[in-house]
Amino acid sequence: MTKAELVKEIFAKQSFLCVGLDTDIHKIPKFLLDFEDPIFEFNKRIIDATAPYCVAYKPNIAFYESLGSKGWDSLEKTMDYIPTNFFTIADAKRGDIGNTSEMYARTFFQTYNFDSITINPYMGVDSVTPFLSFPDKWAIILALTSNKGSQDFQHISENGEKLYEAVVRKSFDWGNEENIMFVTGATHPKELGAIRKLAPKSFFLVPGIGAQGGDLDAVVQHGKNDEIGLLLNSARSVIYASSNEDFAEAAAAEARKLHEQMARYF
Amino acid sequence: MTKAELVKEIFAKQSFLCVGLDTDIHKIPKFLLDFEDPIFEFNKRIIDATAPYCVAYKPNIAFYESLGSKGWDSLEKTMDYIPTNFFTIADAKRGDIGNTSEMYARTFFQTYNFDSITINPYMGVDSVTPFLSFPDKWAIILALTSNKGSQDFQHISENGEKLYEAVVRKSFDWGNEENIMFVTGATHPKELGAIRKLAPKSFFLVPGIGAQGGDLDAVVQHGKNDEIGLLLNSARSVIYASSNEDFAEAAAAEARKLHEQMARYF
Repeated sequence: MTKAELVKEIFAKQSFLCVGLDTDIHKIPKFLLDFEDPIFEFNKRIIDATAPYCVAYKPNIAFYESLGSKGWDSLEKTMDYIPTNFFTIADAKRGDIGNTSEMYARTFFQTYNFDSITINPYMGVDSVTPFLSFPDKWAIILALTSNKGSQDFQHISENGEKLYEAVVRKSFDWGNEENIMFVTGATHPKELGAIRKLAPKSFFLVPGIGAQGGDLDAVVQHGKNDEIGLLLNSARSVIYASSNEDFAEAAAAEARKLHEQMARYF
Repeated sequence: MTKAELVKEIFAKQSFLCVGLDTDIHKIPKFLLDFEDPIFEFNKRIIDATAPYCVAYKPNIAFYESLGSKGWDSLEKTMDYIPTNFFTIADAKRGDIGNTSEMYARTFFQTYNFDSITINPYMGVDSVTPFLSFPDKWAIILALTSNKGSQDFQHISENGEKLYEAVVRKSFDWGNEENIMFVTGATHPKELGAIRKLAPKSFFLVPGIGAQGGDLDAVVQHGKNDEIGLLLNSARSVIYASSNEDFAEAAAAEARKLHEQMARYF
């Protein structure tokens, strides 16, 4: 999906919500375990319920991988089920030496046909560039993450420039706002504003709203640009809004609530 | 596997060679494609041929993942085939927020029964600690990698301490030399010596010998400790030593050559 296509979807729907499919076999409603593929059954109903309110879906690959090859089959079915006008994100945090990153790119862009994949930049240029040569596909590079451990290394500073700022700056040597996005946690809204200055036209994938405590207003205030430029991810607070048979309706209600909040910013 | 058990294997075999199973369906000898599971068939013969000369095997997960669920089946069969006295490394470069790293740990330590997994430290404490609570299992944390892109961020320095040094120092707040190893590329032997000073009793997984041009003598000179403390990985130069029917014999010859060089250091 191109940036123009994504922006068009966002404005048509007045939403920049991404629903995180962190589908955990131990957390989904018990009655689904009687189905042949409980993970896919859960995702299908979540997608049906939330599609009116979001523009993107983000399967968290760890959750599928933990089930072995069966989990990858559930992922494949999920990807086939998501309509093509939704932006899809493989939240995989991959990155390795060139020949290996090339393999990861084939996996997610070709085998599973994702629009994008999250990338860990620690290993530098040759770990990122193999993801940038696929037309209309995206590398979403970790800049400042939403978790507690983001304090450990991402703020290390040389000549006044923090690691996450160096990551954003360097990324523009490798690609541009048509093939790179950045992960910027909702839990650091002011730093998000600083990253916006470094990357005025780029999209940011913003996790941390909901279960992790981030604030939508603050994110929009510091991060929004003319094209919105934000994809706000919410996973647990939407998909596990209820653990009963009404889980899909409850997820729809949570997604609708976020959508209503977002529509105010258009 | 405990550290004591690993050290015992290393001294018994006079080898600290790890064979990297970067098994690429496009690179294995063509005649194997007639087998039901060409990837497993290749690995089985490589393992049989190289077992006398090495102490560890390191499947590069990207290569299996790129084949979808079939690739994960090949990985599972490979893991079942590797004898239990070999140290096994899932080269996966994983790391994410706590609940997700927990999933990755389950995948590789439980579903596939690896002894260890390579971890990217960019996201800090909660991305690493979920891997440290499994008895006799290991997190192998990226410190200074062997690739060109290691220059981009890993040398960023604050108060005279480089990022990769900060990673090693911080890791000892989270674990110790019984559950953490470090990746230190063979292409930077002097820096490897500096990391040895920070982590005198730790094992280092050293990639970059062979196809990437690292030098064994220099690595041993700067990195060896009383327990050897090194696992030297070689992948492409061993497993693709020949692309013909004699590939297993050729791999054995390459592994034997490395083993002979290593035996001199005992």
